[in-house]
Amino acid sequence: MMITFENDYSCGAHPAVLARLLETNLVPQPGYGEDRYSESARTKIRAACGCPDAEIHFLSGGTQTNAVVLASLLKPWEGVVAAQTGHIHVHEAGAPEALGAKILALPEHLGKLDPAELRSLVRTLLADENVEHMVYPGVVYLSHPTEWGTLYSRAELEAISAICREYGLRLYLDGARLAYGLTAEGTDVDLPLLARLCDAFYIGGTKCGALCGEAVVFPKGGPVHFRNFIKKHGAMMAKGRLCGVQFDALFTDGLYFEIGRRGVETARRLKTILAKHGVPCFMDTPTNQQFAILENGRYAALREKLPVGFWSCPDPEHTVVRFATAWYTTDEYLEELDRLL
Amino acid sequence: MMITFENDYSCGAHPAVLARLLETNLVPQPGYGEDRYSESARTKIRAACGCPDAEIHFLSGGTQTNAVVLASLLKPWEGVVAAQTGHIHVHEAGAPEALGAKILALPEHLGKLDPAELRSLVRTLLADENVEHMVYPGVVYLSHPTEWGTLYSRAELEAISAICREYGLRLYLDGARLAYGLTAEGTDVDLPLLARLCDAFYIGGTKCGALCGEAVVFPKGGPVHFRNFIKKHGAMMAKGRLCGVQFDALFTDGLYFEIGRRGVETARRLKTILAKHGVPCFMDTPTNQQFAILENGRYAALREKLPVGFWSCPDPEHTVVRFATAWYTTDEYLEELDRLL
Amino acid sequence: MMITFENDYSCGAHPAVLARLLETNLVPQPGYGEDRYSESARTKIRAACGCPDAEIHFLSGGTQTNAVVLASLLKPWEGVVAAQTGHIHVHEAGAPEALGAKILALPEHLGKLDPAELRSLVRTLLADENVEHMVYPGVVYLSHPTEWGTLYSRAELEAISAICREYGLRLYLDGARLAYGLTAEGTDVDLPLLARLCDAFYIGGTKCGALCGEAVVFPKGGPVHFRNFIKKHGAMMAKGRLCGVQFDALFTDGLYFEIGRRGVETARRLKTILAKHGVPCFMDTPTNQQFAILENGRYAALREKLPVGFWSCPDPEHTVVRFATAWYTTDEYLEELDRLL
Amino acid sequence: MMITFENDYSCGAHPAVLARLLETNLVPQPGYGEDRYSESARTKIRAACGCPDAEIHFLSGGTQTNAVVLASLLKPWEGVVAAQTGHIHVHEAGAPEALGAKILALPEHLGKLDPAELRSLVRTLLADENVEHMVYPGVVYLSHPTEWGTLYSRAELEAISAICREYGLRLYLDGARLAYGLTAEGTDVDLPLLARLCDAFYIGGTKCGALCGEAVVFPKGGPVHFRNFIKKHGAMMAKGRLCGVQFDALFTDGLYFEIGRRGVETARRLKTILAKHGVPCFMDTPTNQQFAILENGRYAALREKLPVGFWSCPDPEHTVVRFATAWYTTDEYLEELDRLL
Repeated sequence: MMITFENDYSCGAHPAVLARLLETNLVPQPGYGEDRYSESARTKIRAACGCPDAEIHFLSGGTQTNAVVLASLLKPWEGVVAAQTGHIHVHEAGAPEALGAKILALPEHLGKLDPAELRSLVRTLLADENVEHMVYPGVVYLSHPTEWGTLYSRAELEAISAICREYGLRLYLDGARLAYGLTAEGTDVDLPLLARLCDAFYIGGTKCGALCGEAVVFPKGGPVHFRNFIKKHGAMMAKGRLCGVQFDALFTDGLYFEIGRRGVETARRLKTILAKHGVPCFMDTPTNQQFAILENGRYAALREKLPVGFWSCPDPEHTVVRFATAWYTTDEYLEELDRLL
Repeated sequence: MMITFENDYSCGAHPAVLARLLETNLVPQPGYGEDRYSESARTKIRAACGCPDAEIHFLSGGTQTNAVVLASLLKPWEGVVAAQTGHIHVHEAGAPEALGAKILALPEHLGKLDPAELRSLVRTLLADENVEHMVYPGVVYLSHPTEWGTLYSRAELEAISAICREYGLRLYLDGARLAYGLTAEGTDVDLPLLARLCDAFYIGGTKCGALCGEAVVFPKGGPVHFRNFIKKHGAMMAKGRLCGVQFDALFTDGLYFEIGRRGVETARRLKTILAKHGVPCFMDTPTNQQFAILENGRYAALREKLPVGFWSCPDPEHTVVRFATAWYTTDEYLEELDRLL
Repeated sequence: MMITFENDYSCGAHPAVLARLLETNLVPQPGYGEDRYSESARTKIRAACGCPDAEIHFLSGGTQTNAVVLASLLKPWEGVVAAQTGHIHVHEAGAPEALGAKILALPEHLGKLDPAELRSLVRTLLADENVEHMVYPGVVYLSHPTEWGTLYSRAELEAISAICREYGLRLYLDGARLAYGLTAEGTDVDLPLLARLCDAFYIGGTKCGALCGEAVVFPKGGPVHFRNFIKKHGAMMAKGRLCGVQFDALFTDGLYFEIGRRGVETARRLKTILAKHGVPCFMDTPTNQQFAILENGRYAALREKLPVGFWSCPDPEHTVVRFATAWYTTDEYLEELDRLL
Repeated sequence: MMITFENDYSCGAHPAVLARLLETNLVPQPGYGEDRYSESARTKIRAACGCPDAEIHFLSGGTQTNAVVLASLLKPWEGVVAAQTGHIHVHEAGAPEALGAKILALPEHLGKLDPAELRSLVRTLLADENVEHMVYPGVVYLSHPTEWGTLYSRAELEAISAICREYGLRLYLDGARLAYGLTAEGTDVDLPLLARLCDAFYIGGTKCGALCGEAVVFPKGGPVHFRNFIKKHGAMMAKGRLCGVQFDALFTDGLYFEIGRRGVETARRLKTILAKHGVPCFMDTPTNQQFAILENGRYAALREKLPVGFWSCPDPEHTVVRFATAWYTTDEYLEELDRLL
């Protein structure tokens, strides 16, 4: 049997999503997201967010979504504050900069921004007598779960949001793996909270059960002519129905959360298996990504048998390796891992 | 029954494409187009093009593909020559310019570039003593079928390609609707010809049977680090398999051509129906798009009953309306149109 | 003696401008345009425009000014309407596009936009059902004098400005050679008119007596944080005093207009000399640029003896050649030309 | 008497530079840097660099030069490595990012890059299995003197250059204040060394005696069509002679070095005055910028009497203040400072 822990986008779509695509396949609909399925999905997402006036758009992937939304939120004189480990800063090949957005990087703490450091940066920049020659802080970028699988608490998000409001910044949250964050044990963060605190966030589809697609939510309304902006950046899908149908399925009968729970639960069991085999974790994380420290030889041996994700080299003898679970991670996956370690 | 002639992306995917997605759904594969389905699709497309060394990438949509490929083909001092009616010049919301590419527009002749005018433009620009202050011609953009549904002949493409070679330009062909072009009656253009004449072209999926996706072909090899370039412009799909599986299906057992023939054949019958009801065509076209001239009142009445595409207003009393057929255009569609006219 | 008619930037600065640079050279002043000379120049320009609230910035050159001001005036969904012969469209190496601005080109009539064609373009674009996939008209670009040395009348500018207001567009005027336009015989256009009709325009320095520098005028106030925007695009001069001192001199005792008159008057005499030698003009123009049609052999012979500007090739036997005069064109220049023809 | 230590661009041009502008003012010359003065300046700079084949261009200011040269040196997949305090990263309003260049920031050590950290960053990035999703290191940016007035040693530059060659990176050096660096006590860095080690560097004019202008040197030849690239980014001066004449003067009879020595010598004396008044320096620097730590009250009192440059707030009670000297810093300046402290 073929198994993988390399990432959370190794299989196609959750079967219920695919079923819905099949079912709706031959019903003709307008293009560009003006189809009835997209509209239905938007209604369901608005309800899940407790935010009946939210403006919602579907884009095809995460890097694209981050670049387009950030560019739309930034004024020409502004940049985006992010943790040094932020996906936009590390793993998007310079996509934000390709649209002219400078990233103002702050230290990371378990992958997260520290509110006090954020406040200090913003205050210092705005008070600088040379600010006219600098990039003003305009948007704060958070990922939740972070790139290390960690989560912000409600209190942390409240604190960051308060700083944004105090200084006129916008808050944007990258929810590529939001399903796994919303269903993690002990989290006190939910969609209505995000809708209340953020100026924009996206609900990840690609890594949470869809073939592709991310749902961008602007709780207080989006930028003027944002659809034109999407088109201008090559991110408008002719068959907008593809995302619409999928998100409609994901937000029917709580499927999105069921998917999240499956990823989280299998990650919990995976952690137990790693521990059983004496593999230490790089940090403790409550979501679907686990980062294990493997001695280089063991890493080399393991990856011949099963795909895992290279993450970093903390020292010359060890490698940090990502094990990701997802909605498709079955018992067989875990049993096989147990055998291989 | 619900029918539409508004465009050729009103339904989902061709059933055989969807079936293949279903079938492969739970087989884990690497991301970012390194899956076995993408590899298989590439092999089949190379075979269909008679071009075993072609480099092939899958992107999600046409505007994105045009912008990214053009930006990759252009040197910093170059622009792209296109017909005034070219999709990149009219209907892409300035996407090429958003990546810094100036369009050097030439008159259109039934939607096509005229080789003699192309040669004259290139020669004049390169001979201009002020060329250092101008944009050099770098790439020639063709759409085939054009935005008016017309086709280049083999001789025309040979002539344009020869001019490109003579002056060191690259030739790029936008094949958003290529299936309908390759199967049109009387055409002498095929994939091997395109592979021989073009530096890059794309085989359209979205409008030819896929849920999304375009296959970019670089017959002589692609730009250095083109995958990084795709990523940088937000066009890299995490689940690259989505395009891979679909193109693998489209290039199995000639499905892509079968889809084309269906669109062309129904368009031919549609033309007969229009004629029967005294609706003149704006120009004669051999592919799946027909442009009819409707008196404004008749247009208003018709669009209440069935979606068609607004195209332009040739005079204050008339509207040019696009009727598009596709692989999903059944007899019922045509019969219903006959009733409604 | 060395003479030239190649362009209007062949010599240094008008002696009175240079004298003022010498005089102020060792008075320390703040950088970045916050010096007292820049402030004085702004006050004088505001007075000359009859516009006490105008916001004024000094940039170093024309292409830079056009690109930066246009980018600041355009919304992300907008492009700039210009005549096909507009400097931004032909001779700026794609600088507007490098900042993402698409140019919507209209036919030229003696180098000018036709108000009726402008209205028709704007109306058609805004009414197009596919406008979301297109570039909205946002700014109208005029050059005055045009690239052909011609001038708009007050009535034409009023008409164009009225269209801009009706449809919410901004009007921008490129005054690279404004001195020669404001002093041409028969013109009814003056600075207060421009300040009343335009959202932004620039008063050219480089071609009108300065070493470098253009004064951008926003009669109704400029874009937010425009100084930061200038810096971001590399157009902020550390020694802002360089432009300030020069424009202060140009707007003292009517020097700018004296410079203009000299260019216009010598061009008038140049035209007489051309006629005397049987050299026809390509079109009749009232400013400092004259475009003559020379048989190719004569052109080749002439340019060996004196620099003139290549313009275009109307047919294989002839070349259109620009003869430009300026504040430094003395009687000796004209006598030498008379001898050489 | 009016004095200032705010920066090194508070006065106009060195008198010898201005004299040369006056002397050449009415000699007609071609535009765009093709004049004889620019050519003469290039010849002298090549000689000073011991690099007869160097390609040399003149641009108007430092931020512009950095952005344009970096953009020309970077491949689409690359970014630029710089110290966290690098001018391009802090005080250029995001100009590099506006041209799409991501900055890969490293810690600073007295304003400098550490070769070992550079090697480690490059090695790590190039070895990362996810590098295709990252920004490759392409150019190393150094400022010399740095923003803190410090200098690299010959050995440090050799080490950094060797790393660049080993990994295929280009080395670019920002010499905005190069005159003061080349003439600092104890430096072992000279122009021929820079020409040997760098792929590009610029010799600063604006802060070293000119009204404006920086001389970009490509010792091994510049990018293809670089003049068109300059124009495209609005950095081509019509009166290229303005920079040409000035650099010709600066590189005649060692004026550039004389200017440097004056700035360095007055800075040395300034340091003595600060010490005499018990004002500590933030760090010891051998060039024309001195950074003093002032108690906030004393800073507030001082700046009412004389312009100095705000730099940073190391703690709530103190301010770091920049005292800059230049070619125009006379004994009177120093005596006045002595009185005011």
